[in-house]
Amino acid sequence: MIQPFAGRDFISMRDFDRGQVEDLLARCRQFEGTSKPLLNGRVLGSLFFEPSTRTRLSFESAMKRLGGQTLGFTDAATSSTEKGESLWDTIRVVEGYCDIIVIRHPAEGSARLAAEATTRPVINGGDGSNQHPTQTLLDLYTIEKRAGRLHDLKIAFVGDLKYGRTVHSLIKSLCLFPNEFYMVYPPSLGLPSYFLEDLQEQGIQSTDFENVEDLPEDLDILYLTRIQRERFPDPIEYERVRNSYQLTPDSVKRFSDKLTILHPLPRTTELDPDLDSHPGTAYFDQAHNGVVVRKTLLALLLGAG
Amino acid sequence: MIQPFAGRDFISMRDFDRGQVEDLLARCRQFEGTSKPLLNGRVLGSLFFEPSTRTRLSFESAMKRLGGQTLGFTDAATSSTEKGESLWDTIRVVEGYCDIIVIRHPAEGSARLAAEATTRPVINGGDGSNQHPTQTLLDLYTIEKRAGRLHDLKIAFVGDLKYGRTVHSLIKSLCLFPNEFYMVYPPSLGLPSYFLEDLQEQGIQSTDFENVEDLPEDLDILYLTRIQRERFPDPIEYERVRNSYQLTPDSVKRFSDKLTILHPLPRTTELDPDLDSHPGTAYFDQAHNGVVVRKTLLALLLGAG
Amino acid sequence: MIQPFAGRDFISMRDFDRGQVEDLLARCRQFEGTSKPLLNGRVLGSLFFEPSTRTRLSFESAMKRLGGQTLGFTDAATSSTEKGESLWDTIRVVEGYCDIIVIRHPAEGSARLAAEATTRPVINGGDGSNQHPTQTLLDLYTIEKRAGRLHDLKIAFVGDLKYGRTVHSLIKSLCLFPNEFYMVYPPSLGLPSYFLEDLQEQGIQSTDFENVEDLPEDLDILYLTRIQRERFPDPIEYERVRNSYQLTPDSVKRFSDKLTILHPLPRTTELDPDLDSHPGTAYFDQAHNGVVVRKTLLALLLGAG
Repeated sequence: MIQPFAGRDFISMRDFDRGQVEDLLARCRQFEGTSKPLLNGRVLGSLFFEPSTRTRLSFESAMKRLGGQTLGFTDAATSSTEKGESLWDTIRVVEGYCDIIVIRHPAEGSARLAAEATTRPVINGGDGSNQHPTQTLLDLYTIEKRAGRLHDLKIAFVGDLKYGRTVHSLIKSLCLFPNEFYMVYPPSLGLPSYFLEDLQEQGIQSTDFENVEDLPEDLDILYLTRIQRERFPDPIEYERVRNSYQLTPDSVKRFSDKLTILHPLPRTTELDPDLDSHPGTAYFDQAHNGVVVRKTLLALLLGAG
Repeated sequence: MIQPFAGRDFISMRDFDRGQVEDLLARCRQFEGTSKPLLNGRVLGSLFFEPSTRTRLSFESAMKRLGGQTLGFTDAATSSTEKGESLWDTIRVVEGYCDIIVIRHPAEGSARLAAEATTRPVINGGDGSNQHPTQTLLDLYTIEKRAGRLHDLKIAFVGDLKYGRTVHSLIKSLCLFPNEFYMVYPPSLGLPSYFLEDLQEQGIQSTDFENVEDLPEDLDILYLTRIQRERFPDPIEYERVRNSYQLTPDSVKRFSDKLTILHPLPRTTELDPDLDSHPGTAYFDQAHNGVVVRKTLLALLLGAG
Repeated sequence: MIQPFAGRDFISMRDFDRGQVEDLLARCRQFEGTSKPLLNGRVLGSLFFEPSTRTRLSFESAMKRLGGQTLGFTDAATSSTEKGESLWDTIRVVEGYCDIIVIRHPAEGSARLAAEATTRPVINGGDGSNQHPTQTLLDLYTIEKRAGRLHDLKIAFVGDLKYGRTVHSLIKSLCLFPNEFYMVYPPSLGLPSYFLEDLQEQGIQSTDFENVEDLPEDLDILYLTRIQRERFPDPIEYERVRNSYQLTPDSVKRFSDKLTILHPLPRTTELDPDLDSHPGTAYFDQAHNGVVVRKTLLALLLGAG
């Protein structure tokens, strides 16, 4: 199971079929608690063309926990993009300084371009509104860890489903398994029509609601996303929506004990801090799972897993 | 002596009594010249919400000299605070990426808040105008190293005593020991009244002077601070004060050989570069002592000391 | 051969005679492929007062490949220069945190100043328009590796020869060996007169051309540089020059197989991407050679080579 990953890139979850996803998650489980210096002497090029706390720091943590080192930049201002260098050239230069590259870039398709520029393995750390596959992998890992499986689950996505890169990728991956989907969103923030058509072609159906109260009581997963002010031309409309989509201990009281609440973070007001101590809460675990998932990927792609 | 420190936070010198301060300093002495990889595989989360050279780099040096690794950010722009994340949430997320956290933040009380958010040890790297306890510890360490003791010393504080967080903390800690204090400051930049009242309640007395020439010749410690332009509404008044508070080889000639000159750095004009080669000069040693002090703290709090 | 380098600074190629340059390059060859943890426990202070991708990342890569660690800052904004600290003081403080320092600073002479401030070895990572000796060393290393020697070569410098710090240093070093030089540049961007006089005093002659087509067919090295828009008051003139100095597969077709094309990068339009697969192309190798050259220097100056 190790061979097929060594030397590969990790650009989009779409490159992985159900068997490979299950494989990856099984490998992640084996990495839980591992701190062997598997990547001693290896160097990760960490190229962040826009700032990120969670993704960047968890990649660095993963690399360092396995005995490796990192180098790179944390925003475009300290990169040579400022001097007009193309992404292609930056990658061609940096490949000489490291063994594997993670790239976060605002332009869609940039990670795939980077992968074409170099023979080193490239991991997509988020390319604009396109893909963020390590986020999807840690979401899947967290769901499987909490629910014990990735199939036959009742899963709700709540909030902004139109612009959420995270949500689109995760839905796609969860569609590899038989699950029931519920979509809860304010008017105008539903899944994009091209995305819905795509699901229909695969025979995937979902039920739409406008309120969290309409969701079934035996829901397994409630995946909440941020509703961003910028999406609303009218500030009064934003305030109304924001308040009605806030999750509180009260609003989740009607669900069964098996409920797991997820959120990619950072949150603003949609997630009441009083929920932090709720037994169903898993959003901080979810963030922390980023380390084991990224450890696994780094080790597998470097052929050290 | 190790047990009581492991797993603790280091937020304010006020949390430590005389015995504990002596303990800490004794431990620091044992760490002089130690470069054992005591912290191999451990990761320091270095969260600097505002820039700092001395504090950040000496923490990183301390961690790396002991075989550990660091990750984090160097200013708020590359943190997720930009996306509106609360400090609480940032800490809750980052605790999953590291074993111990140092935080520098412009808001008073932020370090204590961070310590409450996580079970990892938290070290205060400076929280606004409030506390900067590792600076105080390295000041104490330097005084003890130069003078051979922390008690029965004649100690003068010179410069801006009103706004100096560094000076307030250090005076408080030196008051744990029997010492004689002298305060030399321009009108309007003396110790704040609440601070003076606090000292009086403890029965601590100090002698005030307006000029360095009035200080006793057998002074042990002269601790100088920066006088900042921003404190003066009138630029002419600032120039006058700045010139009269500049320390030069001439102005320290009348003191005995045992004089030690300290300064938290960075300096501007208050400290004549010609003093750098004066035998009493210890401000660069003082900065360098930051490494051994922070090594000791990291090792003790991580239970590896 | 090790002794003379340990503890020294590396500020300018002018400090090294022909024998020492040959020595350094021989040592670099020995470091090819070496990843022994020679610098285990050592710390590099990486002080970049202005951003740089290539120089900074290849120094970090070199240090980490040899088992060492790095700390520092990536631009002036996160240094204490912002607080008005002098370069002298910054170096005096940072020397206590590390074993060796690399400095990039916009002011000419800053690296020499830094070297005077500390007993630690200091490497010049570029001081304004003055020197960038590690770039020169990697250029020499690349030429020797491709051509098999550093003497009796036909070498052309093409582009902006007036402002190019890189070009000036490299010409100076190549003049230590008997070579034939060709200069190809747009009007007003030739070598500065003081530089030409300097060459004449040494008895060095060069042939000037305005077009690449005039160069001899058996050219060994074509070293191209960026022509920067800022140098031209007239944008139309800039466009004209830019187009006529673009190197393409067509424009190099007339040269023999032994041609090597170099460029310090980043490039803009003067180097057609279609040249990347040309057998004479060596500019990415050139960038990558920065790691072995900097590994060698770090190890030698730290007495670990």
